[in-house]
Amino acid sequence: MTGMRAEIIAVGTELLLGQIVNTNAQYLSQGLAELGIDVYYQTVVGDNVNRLLETIRIARGRADVLVFTGGLGPTMDDVTRDAVASYLGRGMTIHEPTMKKLETMFAGRGAALIESNRRQALLVEGATPLRNDAGLAIGNALSVDGTHYLLLPGPPREMKPMFANDATSWLKELLGPSAALHSVMLKFAGVGESGLEEMLIDLIRAQSDPTIAPYAKEGEVAVRVSTKAASSEEAARKMEATLAEIRRRTDRFLYAEDDVTIEAAVMRLLLRQRRTLALAESCTGGMVAEMVTTVPGSADAFLGGVVSYTNGVKRKLLGVPETLLEGEGAPGAVSEETAAAMAEGARASLDTDFGVAVTGVAGPAGSEGKPVGLVYLGLAERGRPVRTEKLQLSGDREGIRLRASKRALYMLWLALTGRLGTGEK
Amino acid sequence: MTGMRAEIIAVGTELLLGQIVNTNAQYLSQGLAELGIDVYYQTVVGDNVNRLLETIRIARGRADVLVFTGGLGPTMDDVTRDAVASYLGRGMTIHEPTMKKLETMFAGRGAALIESNRRQALLVEGATPLRNDAGLAIGNALSVDGTHYLLLPGPPREMKPMFANDATSWLKELLGPSAALHSVMLKFAGVGESGLEEMLIDLIRAQSDPTIAPYAKEGEVAVRVSTKAASSEEAARKMEATLAEIRRRTDRFLYAEDDVTIEAAVMRLLLRQRRTLALAESCTGGMVAEMVTTVPGSADAFLGGVVSYTNGVKRKLLGVPETLLEGEGAPGAVSEETAAAMAEGARASLDTDFGVAVTGVAGPAGSEGKPVGLVYLGLAERGRPVRTEKLQLSGDREGIRLRASKRALYMLWLALTGRLGTGEK
Repeated sequence: MTGMRAEIIAVGTELLLGQIVNTNAQYLSQGLAELGIDVYYQTVVGDNVNRLLETIRIARGRADVLVFTGGLGPTMDDVTRDAVASYLGRGMTIHEPTMKKLETMFAGRGAALIESNRRQALLVEGATPLRNDAGLAIGNALSVDGTHYLLLPGPPREMKPMFANDATSWLKELLGPSAALHSVMLKFAGVGESGLEEMLIDLIRAQSDPTIAPYAKEGEVAVRVSTKAASSEEAARKMEATLAEIRRRTDRFLYAEDDVTIEAAVMRLLLRQRRTLALAESCTGGMVAEMVTTVPGSADAFLGGVVSYTNGVKRKLLGVPETLLEGEGAPGAVSEETAAAMAEGARASLDTDFGVAVTGVAGPAGSEGKPVGLVYLGLAERGRPVRTEKLQLSGDREGIRLRASKRALYMLWLALTGRLGTGEK
Repeated sequence: MTGMRAEIIAVGTELLLGQIVNTNAQYLSQGLAELGIDVYYQTVVGDNVNRLLETIRIARGRADVLVFTGGLGPTMDDVTRDAVASYLGRGMTIHEPTMKKLETMFAGRGAALIESNRRQALLVEGATPLRNDAGLAIGNALSVDGTHYLLLPGPPREMKPMFANDATSWLKELLGPSAALHSVMLKFAGVGESGLEEMLIDLIRAQSDPTIAPYAKEGEVAVRVSTKAASSEEAARKMEATLAEIRRRTDRFLYAEDDVTIEAAVMRLLLRQRRTLALAESCTGGMVAEMVTTVPGSADAFLGGVVSYTNGVKRKLLGVPETLLEGEGAPGAVSEETAAAMAEGARASLDTDFGVAVTGVAGPAGSEGKPVGLVYLGLAERGRPVRTEKLQLSGDREGIRLRASKRALYMLWLALTGRLGTGEK
């Protein structure tokens, strides 16, 4: 069977109150995508039988697979099993191994098995049981009139293994051999979402198979190229021409072909090349260092840095000359000259192969008569002249800091891959 | 108007693919609950006009307020505005201030304003614009035939301020004066979620009015005390006894009675006391500096810091004696002695009132034979002996770094409020 559509239905008033985040929906969406099942909707509904029945009715009309999470527990509020049975006009049967497990457990506690707890052993009539390794409630899988129902528990530690094991096996049985989705994630830096789309607009418009999906988050831009194929070799063949064309057009903005951050890509290169890095940050206030050190093992390449939030620190710890910073006609803290001096100061002081510096105006107000969003990057490399770059970034304070940090890492990536060029300012 | 029902509709194929988690739904659910608006459904739909139209039709039949997030950007995939206009049979108007902002921005970059970017300045005919402080796309609010539509951007950093400011004002106007929910946010540091709940469990169990809701996120713990009242005076009277009891029990862990981060609370105190700070960070890799510099105006108190990710930097920039770091019987980089030397080194080098240091093992592997999660904090204060604190934190690498950073800020808060004590180690 191909082209199955799924809807994920999370049941729980705590989600509607915002007490918890619906991370189950993400996990299940990824898992279903990997099986080649398209998720068209995610729905959240409270612990209310009537609203849940209405949700099932709607989902039944637009999806082939209804994946429920939550509402399988022992309390009165756990209504998923009852709602599905009632919607299908079916009764319940007892899953004996679960009932035994419950009885043993309660006997071990010296407590009577409360009636409500028995509910966790119930199956909708005709359902295949899905093993729960991390909890008590048994999962349900059943197909009725061409629609498939999966009832999974709400707690992620119970839901995830149940989905990964029994539910995935059950779905694979339904799907038959040939539907898996293969995809390649392309990551870009130094270019914004709309700039990238501009480069690829005709490809995106004309896409059918493989599909091309751009997305942006937290200062990063990515494109996912996907196709359905029986093997990864077949998938590679089907995606080859599209990937080559995207590579050709995006050239130096494409920094990775897997889902890594620019900081991870940079650290990977530094470690592989056995080169070392020092940082000097003003407006980013430690953000670049923080990003770099999220990568485990970074201490082998990143020796340290200075957060030179004030001119005194730039002078004292980075050796930036007083004449650059203050006085009549001085370029000031936010200038190409200061960025260069900071980068070389950090590099020389810690005796590293690279020194990268960021100085700019993150806002909310301008500084030294310079506008919010003006940022200079400096890159010092052992034995080469310092190179700099001027940016005019938009957004609020945090957005400017984030983009400035990513751009500084991108500049280093260009240098590490021999793309920065000597003449580059 | 009372008893309003809302549906949150998140638009974005990246959600259906499981590439991102729908944290917006949680944020909006909380915000709507605080306004006394019940959320009955959360729906996620892809970037597809037809499916979005069908989603609007269904939501229109079961909710009074439809809150959309996502799909307001410049790309072809951003279809929310078009779908709502088409559903309502309305045209679009241009929001001139946003168009000016776009033109200025692109002119500043020396680039032509790409046509697709102009879409971010469009309003559905008759809609009230909702200001976007962190991005470009203007938000929309409109009421048609008794149904209310809010169109918010997808990126949380744009969506949150827009909801908290213009959208909330617009909703309050709809709701009228008597349903207003008043609440006080109590923020805690130096204590975990379960520790705090332990202190307050009987109050939480017995709550009715005011309500007491604990929250935990990103290394912070909070309790929101809320009541519905016609005036803030009446609300204050109703909450008085509960607040007093919580204050009494939580004592030195309660650092603020408004929704500020510990870094903002610390910077507020430093600025008010006209005292200055230097930082020395090892395992947190710049995270404390990054947090502190998110606060606008922080440069008046935070002079700078050193990210001493390796022993060489600890020696060279912080003056930590070699004998502490290496050799037979040396306490090592992760030790009380090194934390103290780092704190005093940073303070003395930058001549500040305070020096705060963090050194520890963030993982994934142990270091110097010390376990993951072991962290030492150092706090140097001008004219006083250095004080230190030993922590054993749990969680993964990022969790340990986050909690270590927050604990370092909390230690400084204790010092600034005279609670740290001289004898404290």
